[in-house]
Amino acid sequence: MRRFVQRGFLKPEKVDEYRRLHSAVWPEVLKTITECNLSNYTISIIGNEVVSCFDYLGEDFDADMKKMESDPVTLEWWKHTKPCFLRHGEGVYYEDLEEIFRHD
Amino acid sequence: MRRFVQRGFLKPEKVDEYRRLHSAVWPEVLKTITECNLSNYTISIIGNEVVSCFDYLGEDFDADMKKMESDPVTLEWWKHTKPCFLRHGEGVYYEDLEEIFRHD
Repeated sequence: MRRFVQRGFLKPEKVDEYRRLHSAVWPEVLKTITECNLSNYTISIIGNEVVSCFDYLGEDFDADMKKMESDPVTLEWWKHTKPCFLRHGEGVYYEDLEEIFRHD
Repeated sequence: MRRFVQRGFLKPEKVDEYRRLHSAVWPEVLKTITECNLSNYTISIIGNEVVSCFDYLGEDFDADMKKMESDPVTLEWWKHTKPCFLRHGEGVYYEDLEEIFRHD
């Protein structure tokens, strides 16, 4: 099982909207997350910085991400969430962190 | 089960030392982590920013943190790790993030 930790920065004026969106994520988006083998998924915030953390339970992460990107409801959801990011125009959203310690 | 996500900033010149320390954490420190009901514990890095992420399996987090702080080996370990933080002099290490989304 591999854990992913990712960081992103929101436009300060979009923090409330990002919070609101994530207080009621569309059921179809949640279903796709599960079908793409992501589990124990949290998003946390401090100021305008967001950190997502999830465990990947599948065998082929790239294939599962391609599957996620092919879900029309998820694509529609991202039309709402992605413009909340500070570097939306440059296509910069969540960036992967490198794991330096693990204790199960 | 509650997940904690925390963020900290290292002194740029101490990033390598923090990595080195966490590539070989003392066994007694790991034992104390488990005894204090922290599980699935990772530390991840990007630049000089570190993010810790763990699940708390116990019933009384404050009591377990007091237990951790009373372990002499952990206190000794922290003498090595805490000075790596940028605001060590102000006593600022990892700060808690607020969870805004969860999907198990």
